[in-house]
Amino acid sequence: MKDIKGFVFDAYGTLFDVYSVTALCEQLFPGRGAALAQLWRVKQLQYAMMRSLMGRHRDFWRLTEDGLVYACKSLGLELTADSRARLLQAYLTLAAFPDVKPGLEALKALGLRLAILSNGEPKMLQAAAQSAGIAGLLDRVISVEEVGIFKPSPRVYGLAPERLGVGAAELGFVSSNAWDVAGAASAGLRALWIQRSAAEPPEELGFGAERVVHAITDLPPLLRTR
Amino acid sequence: MKDIKGFVFDAYGTLFDVYSVTALCEQLFPGRGAALAQLWRVKQLQYAMMRSLMGRHRDFWRLTEDGLVYACKSLGLELTADSRARLLQAYLTLAAFPDVKPGLEALKALGLRLAILSNGEPKMLQAAAQSAGIAGLLDRVISVEEVGIFKPSPRVYGLAPERLGVGAAELGFVSSNAWDVAGAASAGLRALWIQRSAAEPPEELGFGAERVVHAITDLPPLLRTR
Repeated sequence: MKDIKGFVFDAYGTLFDVYSVTALCEQLFPGRGAALAQLWRVKQLQYAMMRSLMGRHRDFWRLTEDGLVYACKSLGLELTADSRARLLQAYLTLAAFPDVKPGLEALKALGLRLAILSNGEPKMLQAAAQSAGIAGLLDRVISVEEVGIFKPSPRVYGLAPERLGVGAAELGFVSSNAWDVAGAASAGLRALWIQRSAAEPPEELGFGAERVVHAITDLPPLLRTR
Repeated sequence: MKDIKGFVFDAYGTLFDVYSVTALCEQLFPGRGAALAQLWRVKQLQYAMMRSLMGRHRDFWRLTEDGLVYACKSLGLELTADSRARLLQAYLTLAAFPDVKPGLEALKALGLRLAILSNGEPKMLQAAAQSAGIAGLLDRVISVEEVGIFKPSPRVYGLAPERLGVGAAELGFVSSNAWDVAGAASAGLRALWIQRSAAEPPEELGFGAERVVHAITDLPPLLRTR
């Protein structure tokens, strides 16, 4: 991957660890936290795709709230205004996975252009990047709000080369979500899958990763390979 | 709903009971059948939406197979060629829920136009309608294959008034899937939610059902109401 001149990263689950959200779910709803966090995440993604197909875009901050409301109703959990606010705020103060900062620093030192490309709403992404201490390492934070449709639409992935000023053939896209990897590959980016949960198989979507890595720090050595 | 002149029905889970698929999952993979059936269904829907957004349409028969392959890999179940064929064939020989035939007969007797509008591939839908003994009651079986994109795209729902020759304001769309109800309502159809699983809340998608019913036989009396 010698010819790579920039990397674009998915945000939630790839750079930012959403564990703190799960922990707060458990704190607010003891014994139901894991179930709530899981269903919330499923609905967040489902609503993004459904609204994109319906032609009824709504930003990810509001979708995240909609998903939380549904998940609580479905699980029979009473969501107070205070709990709702605290759970949403948790998305603004996520930690980065431990390999993220050293990995990005090493890539930056090699002169690569670096960016986020996420379903997230711009203010959510800026807040999380600041909170995780990686804002200064990123050349761009690109949100789907620029096109008003969510991943895996090719219009989203098309933003990356355009906004970063690097051709698609020289641009690596890194995501922990196998479906996001498929979407990027289908749209012509060089997709890498960062497998943060070992057991997960790739998606059966006809497009796969050029490489599979396990940490952002695995990327710099790849640049010495074909 | 006096002015309704036709009803369009979703297929799987609304008219056709997919229980026999679940039962076969359990027979082939004892103790894992429920988990397999659930993940299979999730991936089937997810792949339909993802491929629609990616602009990489593939018919529902093949998506159903892709979802099965993924679900087995994810759960660590070995899928033999024989099991794969039997599980897919099960989609061709589904039973109708007990309220379906009497409900459709009563609507037909009132002179209404009746159709299926489904993500399903045309041959899958024809086979299931024959097997369930309701093919003769339907004026049309409309598949998303006519437009090459899946629900909840408005292009799919737009097929219903066009193919059935009934205006959208006089056409009821009935689905057991709350997201499908939201998609139809967003596209301008008169959406009814048939709640086949009592505990489920409506989706937080900004569009809801005009009415909630619990069986197809609940529909004829509605036609005497405003």
